[in-house]
Formats: sequence, C-alpha cells, structure tokens
Amino acid sequence: MIKVSVIGATGYAGAELLRLLHGHPEVEVVHITSESSAGKPISELYPHLKGIYDQELISMRAEGNMEMIGRDSDFVFIGLPHGHAMEVGKALENMPVRIIDLGADYRFDDTSIYEEWYKVPHTHKDAPRVYGLAELYRDQVKDAKIIGNAGCYTTASILALAPLAKHRLIDVNTIVIDAKSGVSGAGRGAKTANHFPELYDSFKAYGVATHRHTPEIEQALSDLSGDDIVLNFTPHLVPMSRGILSTCYAKLKDGISAELVDAAFANMYGKEYFVRLLGRNGYPATKNVRGSNFCEIGWHVDPRTHRVIVLSAIDNLVKGAAGQAIQNMNIAAGLDERTGLDIVPMYP
Amino acid sequence: MIKVSVIGATGYAGAELLRLLHGHPEVEVVHITSESSAGKPISELYPHLKGIYDQELISMRAEGNMEMIGRDSDFVFIGLPHGHAMEVGKALENMPVRIIDLGADYRFDDTSIYEEWYKVPHTHKDAPRVYGLAELYRDQVKDAKIIGNAGCYTTASILALAPLAKHRLIDVNTIVIDAKSGVSGAGRGAKTANHFPELYDSFKAYGVATHRHTPEIEQALSDLSGDDIVLNFTPHLVPMSRGILSTCYAKLKDGISAELVDAAFANMYGKEYFVRLLGRNGYPATKNVRGSNFCEIGWHVDPRTHRVIVLSAIDNLVKGAAGQAIQNMNIAAGLDERTGLDIVPMYP
Amino acid sequence: MIKVSVIGATGYAGAELLRLLHGHPEVEVVHITSESSAGKPISELYPHLKGIYDQELISMRAEGNMEMIGRDSDFVFIGLPHGHAMEVGKALENMPVRIIDLGADYRFDDTSIYEEWYKVPHTHKDAPRVYGLAELYRDQVKDAKIIGNAGCYTTASILALAPLAKHRLIDVNTIVIDAKSGVSGAGRGAKTANHFPELYDSFKAYGVATHRHTPEIEQALSDLSGDDIVLNFTPHLVPMSRGILSTCYAKLKDGISAELVDAAFANMYGKEYFVRLLGRNGYPATKNVRGSNFCEIGWHVDPRTHRVIVLSAIDNLVKGAAGQAIQNMNIAAGLDERTGLDIVPMYP
Amino acid sequence: MIKVSVIGATGYAGAELLRLLHGHPEVEVVHITSESSAGKPISELYPHLKGIYDQELISMRAEGNMEMIGRDSDFVFIGLPHGHAMEVGKALENMPVRIIDLGADYRFDDTSIYEEWYKVPHTHKDAPRVYGLAELYRDQVKDAKIIGNAGCYTTASILALAPLAKHRLIDVNTIVIDAKSGVSGAGRGAKTANHFPELYDSFKAYGVATHRHTPEIEQALSDLSGDDIVLNFTPHLVPMSRGILSTCYAKLKDGISAELVDAAFANMYGKEYFVRLLGRNGYPATKNVRGSNFCEIGWHVDPRTHRVIVLSAIDNLVKGAAGQAIQNMNIAAGLDERTGLDIVPMYP
Repeated sequence: MIKVSVIGATGYAGAELLRLLHGHPEVEVVHITSESSAGKPISELYPHLKGIYDQELISMRAEGNMEMIGRDSDFVFIGLPHGHAMEVGKALENMPVRIIDLGADYRFDDTSIYEEWYKVPHTHKDAPRVYGLAELYRDQVKDAKIIGNAGCYTTASILALAPLAKHRLIDVNTIVIDAKSGVSGAGRGAKTANHFPELYDSFKAYGVATHRHTPEIEQALSDLSGDDIVLNFTPHLVPMSRGILSTCYAKLKDGISAELVDAAFANMYGKEYFVRLLGRNGYPATKNVRGSNFCEIGWHVDPRTHRVIVLSAIDNLVKGAAGQAIQNMNIAAGLDERTGLDIVPMYP
Repeated sequence: MIKVSVIGATGYAGAELLRLLHGHPEVEVVHITSESSAGKPISELYPHLKGIYDQELISMRAEGNMEMIGRDSDFVFIGLPHGHAMEVGKALENMPVRIIDLGADYRFDDTSIYEEWYKVPHTHKDAPRVYGLAELYRDQVKDAKIIGNAGCYTTASILALAPLAKHRLIDVNTIVIDAKSGVSGAGRGAKTANHFPELYDSFKAYGVATHRHTPEIEQALSDLSGDDIVLNFTPHLVPMSRGILSTCYAKLKDGISAELVDAAFANMYGKEYFVRLLGRNGYPATKNVRGSNFCEIGWHVDPRTHRVIVLSAIDNLVKGAAGQAIQNMNIAAGLDERTGLDIVPMYP
Repeated sequence: MIKVSVIGATGYAGAELLRLLHGHPEVEVVHITSESSAGKPISELYPHLKGIYDQELISMRAEGNMEMIGRDSDFVFIGLPHGHAMEVGKALENMPVRIIDLGADYRFDDTSIYEEWYKVPHTHKDAPRVYGLAELYRDQVKDAKIIGNAGCYTTASILALAPLAKHRLIDVNTIVIDAKSGVSGAGRGAKTANHFPELYDSFKAYGVATHRHTPEIEQALSDLSGDDIVLNFTPHLVPMSRGILSTCYAKLKDGISAELVDAAFANMYGKEYFVRLLGRNGYPATKNVRGSNFCEIGWHVDPRTHRVIVLSAIDNLVKGAAGQAIQNMNIAAGLDERTGLDIVPMYP
Repeated sequence: MIKVSVIGATGYAGAELLRLLHGHPEVEVVHITSESSAGKPISELYPHLKGIYDQELISMRAEGNMEMIGRDSDFVFIGLPHGHAMEVGKALENMPVRIIDLGADYRFDDTSIYEEWYKVPHTHKDAPRVYGLAELYRDQVKDAKIIGNAGCYTTASILALAPLAKHRLIDVNTIVIDAKSGVSGAGRGAKTANHFPELYDSFKAYGVATHRHTPEIEQALSDLSGDDIVLNFTPHLVPMSRGILSTCYAKLKDGISAELVDAAFANMYGKEYFVRLLGRNGYPATKNVRGSNFCEIGWHVDPRTHRVIVLSAIDNLVKGAAGQAIQNMNIAAGLDERTGLDIVPMYP
C-alpha cells in the first residue's frame, strides 16, 4: 500500500482527494492536516464523509508533525493556498517522501513569472520540480520529487490547444481563451460575492486580462510550440457547483485544413484514456465528465474566418485538481495511470 | 462473475445502474435493451458513458432476445414503466435467472391495491416476489426469484418511520409525510412542465393525496406495526437534479420519551452500513449523500406538541433506485452487501 | 407625495423596498440608512440600483440624524435585525411619523412570547402597535402608529390556514406546517452554510420545532379561531433565490365537507386582490408569484385521512416583506392598497 | 391609449410583452393570438398572468381575424418563429397599423443573407422595414412601418462593439464574440436537450460558427464601421433562466489607447438611459439587469496583447426581446422612450 498524507485537507480539493483516494485500491491515507480545524474529525467539516473518514485533522505546524508526516508517507498532497506549499516543500526536501502540490508554487520553470503574477517571493527556486499535467509531461512526472499539479482552467485550456501548438497549426498571436467555471473553483471560504442568492440565476466574468492561470497556459503552450506565446484568458463564473468549459479561439495558419486539425488531435490523444475526443463539430458538456477525471474535447473549423474553435470540458475538482494529482501519483508510483480513477461521470 | 442484463436501460435509473455496475468488481453486463433506441450504442443517448459503455442496445421484443437475455444472465434488472415489467417477469419465470424490477409491478402483496392506484390490471398475481427494501426485508430478498425494488420516496419515508412503527411509539393515525425530490425522479421524458426555465427558481407540490407511493409506504409501515396504517404523503419538486428529503411527522404515544425514540433508531439501524444516523436534532442534507447509497436520518422531538419529526435524505437514483437494486442483488447473490457500493458521496 | 425613509436599507428586504418604491407613484424616498456602509451610495452595494438610486446611505446614529429622519418622513420602514427596531420605535414615538417594522420587534401582543423565542428583552412593551398582515388586520392597520409587518413564512402559512381557523373547520391540535424557502430569506450575510456550492443541488430542513416564526403563526391563528393553538412548523432551504411554499396539514372536524372548505376560502378571500385562489386541487408555484405581492392558494381534501392540505406560495421578499410593508403603508395612508404593487410576476 | 395586439403570444417573449405592457400607462392590449391554443385564456398557459390577463387567445388565421387585428390595433407585435412573420407583414401591409416583429424576418437589409442562414425563402423582400436596435437606429425607427426588432445575442453583442466599430478603433478581422445565455432564450418548447436534469449543473456551447445571430451582428457592425466584417460568434447555454453575457474580443489598432476606448463609449452612450456604462475594468452581471431593459457594459484593455475585451449583459427577454420592442414602439409612437420601461432590475 502507498501511504499518503494530505496537507491542507479542508478545502474542496482536499475533500475531493479523500473521496477519490477512498476508491483507490493501493492507497492508505495516513495523516490529514488543517491549521484552523486541527483536532476536529474531517467529517465534522464535511458531513458527507461521516463513517468513511472520521479521522482527526492535525496541525502540520505542531511540534514534530511535519517530520512525522514526511516519515510516514510515500506521497504528500498539498492543498494549501499559494505561497504556503514552499514551506512544506523545503521541510520535506531531504526526506524520501514525494510531493504533489495542488497549488501554484511549483508550476513555473521561471519563478520570476510566479513572483510577478502571484505577488509573493518564491522561496524555493531550486526545488527539483516538474509541471504536473500528465498527458504532456508524463515522462518527467515519473521520477519527480516535487510535482506542481496543473491548475483547473489551465488543464482544460492547455489540453484543448496543445495539439495545435505542438503541430504549429495556428498563428499564436491570435489565441483567445474564454473559460467558464462552476463556483467550487473559488474555494470554500464564504464571502458575499459567492453567497448563494448573489450568484444564482446570474452570470459574469472576472479577472479579465489579469487571471493568474494566464502565464501557466502560456508557459505550456510556448513549451510545445517553441514560440513565445502571449494570449488572452478570460474566466467566468457559472451558477453551478462543478465543471469548467474552455472555449479556445485561434486563426489557423494559411493552408491548414480541417483534416490536419483532426489529425493533430488524433495523433496527440488517440491513446489517452482520460482525454475523450468528440471529434470535429463535437460539443463537450461539463455534465458529461462530472465527478470523473475525463477531459472532453471537440473542435470546429470556421471556413468563413479560418479560425479553429476548440471546446474542452473537465470537472475542475477532479481532472482540474484531485483526480489529476492522483493520476500524477499513479505515474510517479509506477502504477497503471487509471488506478482508482476508473470512474463513470455522474449523470444527471 | 455475475452476469447481468438491464431491460429498459435508457431511463435515468438504467443509466445509473450502468454507472454503478461499472464499479462493481463481481459483475459483467451482458445485454442492455431499449425498444425506442434499439440498434444504437447507449453512449449515443448518454454521452457521459462514451468509452465506458459503448454497447449496443437491443430490443427485448426481437425474436429470441428475451430467451437469450434469460439464458445469458444471472440477474435481470428491469427499468421499464409500470405495467411492463410483468411481461418480462412472466417470460423469464421458468428460467433460472433472477429478476430485480425497479418499477412498481412487484412491490405489492395485495395486487388489488396496485390495480387501484396504478389503474392497470395486474397480470402476474402469483409471481414469487418480495419487497426489495434491503434493511427491512433482507432475509426474504436472499432467496427471492423476483424482487420488487422499493421506490424512491418510499425508501426515504419508510426508513425514516420504520423504527417508530416497529416499536409502536407513535399514533399511526397522525402520520404526515412531506417529501421533496429533485427532478430526475420524474424521468428523462421531455415535457413543458419539466422544461428547464419552468422549474428553475421555482418550487411546488404535486400529486397531493393521490401519489402512488402512498400505498407502498402504508404497506411497509402497516407490516411493521401490525396496524392498518393510512397516512398523508405529499411530494414536491425541488429545482435540482438529484436527491430526496422526507420530513415525517407523527404524534408520539403518551409517555413515550425522546430517549425511547433514540433507542428505537439505534436498535434498528445501529449495524446498518447504508443508514447513517445523525442522531436526535440531526439535519440530513441531500448533498451529503449525493451519488451514494446512503440514507441519512435525523430526528427531533417537539415537547410542545409531543410530535416526533424525522428527516431522511437519499439520492433518489441510488438508494432510491439503482443502488438499492444492486444492494438487493448483492444479498441475493450472497455477496457482501456493500460490494460495488462503497462510494463516497460527491460533494459539493 | 408621501415621504418615506428606510432604516437599515442594505439587507435584501431594504433593497427590495427601494425596487418597489421606485414604481410607487405617490412616494418619494428621503433618507436611507446603514451603520456599516454609511457614506457610500447604495448602488455601490447593490449595482442593480445604479442610475436609479445612487443616494448616499447615512447613519441613523449620527448626531441629529434620527430626528431629521423623523421630521422629514411620513413613514419610516425599518429593515434592522430583531432587537434593534425598538430603539427606533422609541426615538420616533413622539413625532408624527408612522413606523413599519419589517422585523419581529412589534409583531407580538404578548411580549413575553417575543422574549422567550427571540432571547432578548422587549424594551418597548407599551408601543402602540398592530400586526401587519393586511388581509386580516386591515382595519387596525389604518390608524396604527407602529405596524409590525408580518414575517415571510408566517404570511404564507397564516393566509393558508386563516379561513379554516376562522370558520373552525379543523381540529387545531393536528396542524402541521411544512414550509420551504429560497435562500434570500436568510439575508445577505455571507457564511459557509449559505456559500453557493454548499447549497446548490441540495435540500435540507433547519430550525425544526424551534423556528421563531412558530409563535407568530400561533398568535394569528389563535386569534382567528379563539382556540389556544400550538402547532408544528418546519422550515426548509430550497436551492433557489426567492419564494416560499407552505404546505399545511390539518384534520377536518367530523362532518366538514370539501364544499365547506371551498366556501371558507371564497368567503375570506373572494375580494382580496393579492390573494389568488387556485381553488380545490390547485397547485401554487413560487414562480407564479415571483417579484409580485400575490399569495397563491390551493387546497386539497383527502377523503382517506379526512385531512385538508393547503398550499400557499409567496415571494418572500415581496408579500413576505417589502411588498406587504408597502401594502400596509398604502392602507395607513388612505391610498388604494394596490398602488405601486400592481406588478406582474416575472416568469420564467 | 395606444392599442396593441400580440400575434404569437404564447412564447416566452409574448408572455414577457404582456408583463411589460401591463405596466405601460399608455397602452391597451386588444388582441392576443395563438394557433395551437386559440380559445384558451392565456392565463391557462401562464398561470402567473391569472387575474391580470385572463383574455382569450384567438387564431390569427380564423376568418376575418387578421383584418380585425389590423383594424383595431395601432401596433402589432409578432412573436412567431422565423418565416411566419412575413405572412402577417404582407397581410397588414396596406392597413395603417405598424408592426414590430420580434423574430428575424425583417432584420436584414440583404434578404439573401437571411435566406442563406435561415434556409427559407424571403417572401416580403420589398417590405418597408428598419432594424430595431433603438440606440443605433432611433431615427429610422421613428417613422417605420415594419420594425425588425434586434435579436437577443445580437443586441448584447452589437451594443458592446458599436463604439469601437464606429470610431474604427479595432482591427475588424480580429473580432471574437463569446456569448452566454440563460435557457429561456431557447423558447418554451419541451425537448430532451432542455429538460431540467440535463442542463442543471452543466455548461456547454452550441451552434459554433453556424448560429444565425452571426450575420445580424456582422450587418450592424459593418454598417457602423464601413468595413465588411466577418467574425466569430459562439453561443453557450448557462444553467439559469434569463440573461445574456457577451464577452467580445478584438485587437486595438496600433496606437489606440485605453483612453480613446473610454471616450468612444462615453461618446456613444453617455446620454443613453438604457445603456449603463460601468466604465473601464467594469464587470457587468446578468443579475444586475434581470427583468429590466438595461444593457450593462464594461471594458478592459490588455496591454500585453493590445486587445480590448468588452463585456455586456442584458435580460434576453427584455432588452433582448420584449423590452426592446416596447422601446421601439415608444419611439415610433412619439412617446418618451422610457415609458413603461422604468423598471428596477429584480435582485437577488
């Protein structure tokens, strides 16, 4: 059995990790932590876990706990706000435990980009880390000490555009990503803006031209294409709990046909279990992947404008967070990537 | 491996059966049927199943198919509208296959009650059948040929009131059940009443004093208490997809204390895995059990009116349909009841 | 023009008052107050009011403000939490201004009941007040100094049962009220329990046997029937923004026919503009009255149990708060009751 | 009083017209029609109208009815599916009545574009018509015989981009419009795709590169800019009832500053009552305009990509249909444009 701990277990991603790990046949959860709720059973905060995980939350900062976590665990998942995972990463650096951070601290090759967008100093610049988007960085993930698990919007957006970037089919100056997320993406912290009556029967954008997932998408697509990509990314809030749909636009280069686009997707994802290709003219829906680790992708070529429009849908808490983290763990542990993630989406 | 077929697989309960059976380690799905969509892969109707169940639907009425289903299957689940399961039950009566009907045809001991409420003749009155509410009829389910799987509202309502009825703590003439269901309970057939904009941001009752789950609840509670119970049952439509909450009222008999009520619940459900007791003053929520086979129960005793108010929550498609059917199958097949049903609810 | 002020204008009921008053041809809003947001324009807190009410909020506690409000206003609406309206009531007691409190402070004849359920001392016991449920207390409202505007659940529940109580058709010991409300009823204050993802696709009860609207319903029904009524009232939270549906149960007295029930409703509400009788077997829906001051009522008589089941629907922020307050103001000001309230519900 | 009739009154736009016309002080509704429900009172189909509009629907095709409608009405609103308004337009061509069509039949200057996208022949090519987007075509609307009321997505999208097109600030080859609508935009006809449980907690796109509002947006923006604009328009379905948010992208021409963008919006809409400018970096939300005729607009300039991103929000049934139709009627009748439309949005 693989022994895992979850640091910062009381956010939605932490709770989702526990849901998915319960169904993982090779995993045992050893420690779960929370600073604000240490001493309470997790099921007091999340009644849906009652009888399944009644385990007590501990403080990672209490005397000896971090060392105990490091010693007892093969993998540590971190569900802390950005800026805090580096503390854990450094504390566990010299222990054999491997780390999967669900936040942004270890996602950037160039930490100055992190510092610019996240407005905090990066204090672990030489960390031995890889970017954890399994379909694209599988080989690096295998032996990584620290995995910077890809973000939710970014996973949907990168997977949508990766084949086009890699095969250089698009004019990279024309990329526009219009993304929409359920409210769980904003976390569990109560605030007026996310109070039920404020959002119900409403729709709006936020973070236009400033959202922190922008440079993460740019990094991965630049990496694939060899270009230095700068793009627009616009997030929106959908009055629903879960799910992300990303609508991605780019001009095809001259002479690129719809068939070449089809081939790029088939080539890149034909053998990927978690990427469900709906083909040209396909329409992903967040409900089709809800609760699962799938990413659905469909694409459209507009002969009038010579633009390609790619649609991708994921569950933000699964493929966009906890599921992807487990997929990365499976790879890193040498297991079949699907172990514990062979889940049918919940419909309706 | 247990071989199962699903007759009438294209309703929500049928699709949910496929979702849950996929996670069942001892089951193989052999045939799935639909009269209106025969010849199509089920994933064309339910895109969330793409890549998981792309199996073709067959017609149960096509030459030789019913016999083939009977021959190839250890268990047949029936997801047909009421009145149609009897046809299947009779056709398979003399084959070794066992039958679990998710509809109402085999739920009543007294078929005249069925005929009165369902307005169709019962054509299989001597069917060797048992009522399939596992927590109450486990012993009968073990060896049953035909299991009339309990309904959704009825499961929530009966489990809520069973300890009080069995221990004779309440005045059975005072029972009022006010139940609320998500819209998936109404099936997948499109009609104006269930068109999205008609129900969103709205709440209403339906079927007051006439809903067909009434006599089913009365049958089970009468059976437990020895009285001839007549009660009020009122269903309501909640603008959400899944979940039932049942709010049940009854006057406690003179001298019955809150502690006796507590003891009745503990006594009846203390060892039941799928019944989650939240205790006196507990508040079940449908979200806490969503996607799982759990039934959450909390109860309240009002000293001012000497009424007990019991609250119960289930997922109507799981404990109220497909999950309970699999639980019954597990019992009938001699498996651990939880096999394939050890699912963490999906939250949020 | 009638001059009105709104004290505590930043809750949902305050904002709804401003929406409705804008459409009132005889009203001018002079002052609006908030302690936490004094100095800000109300449209900064409620962007939907931008360009309509950009008026600045003032503090009622700032030197001279309360006196100014009293002097400048014909009517003052109070939208403060319970316990705080008494302060205003006393401060304005000797000025000619009339007061309509949307909270509970002035709803009870017997202030000891208020103190018992609300857990605060009543400091204005001799206030010249009337209970503001217009259809039942119209004559008293006409000349009242202080009107204790009826609560949301209570308005729906009392209007549903009033004809039966008044005509003494029911056994008053058998009353059960099962009520359901949209989340705006819980106010605008952010807390985890009402965070969007926590409530979406979920349903639950709260305040069983302890909700503060219970004694208010009992007071009005006792008043009508002459009996000392004690009943059960159970509120539930519906994942929607607005609307209350109340499902009310009682045993009919021996010999009371469905026709007598019909007559009681016709007799009491036949001429009431804001009470929409849907008749026997009618089904109110909250969407049918959304945004309007209507109360829809339908009733059902169950011959099996001899119970009557009455359903009523209102918009909790209109007939359950701001609309009713304006209706009371109209009566008190000698205007046609419908002035400014002749609003078509918003559907869908 | 202006006498109006509504042809095709049973769709959502028809019902919304009746809601808004009820609050219009200068209007009397004389006839309402429906072919499928002729003979029924409209309140039977729309219970929220009970007691307000209990008027009987008539058939426009019954002997003499069309002539009667034409004779009795100053204005006729048409709420028929595309292809059917032309029949009405021709029948009433020589009567003094004026026509406002809420569908697409009279929206295009070049009827060949209509025929290409709508796949029906245009049978009234020489109709004396104007495009009914009041803020842009006010002068033409004044004396028009037939007004082709602008569509819902198009109103939001055109108003968002009009200042940029008119002042030629953007590269018109780079326009991408990503729009999102509540489900009422799809009409009231029941179908599985819009069945409540199918859409709840889900999000998806549809009609990519093929939606019929595309050429309508292109026509208006080309008209304003003098260029021949071809653009991408992508609609999405939001799990809510009402509201459209349009997110519009374009590259600013070299040297165009954010201040010039600000000035373009101020210049064009500074005096428009129904256009609410939220300014640079503003965030419209559909809830802020729900139930009202407002269009909220905010814009953002991204220095990294030199793109402008414009956000606009409307209520699809008001500014996107019935409200705009009444605004057009007011203009055509010489009334203050706001008459009957001075409505505070319903929040929350």
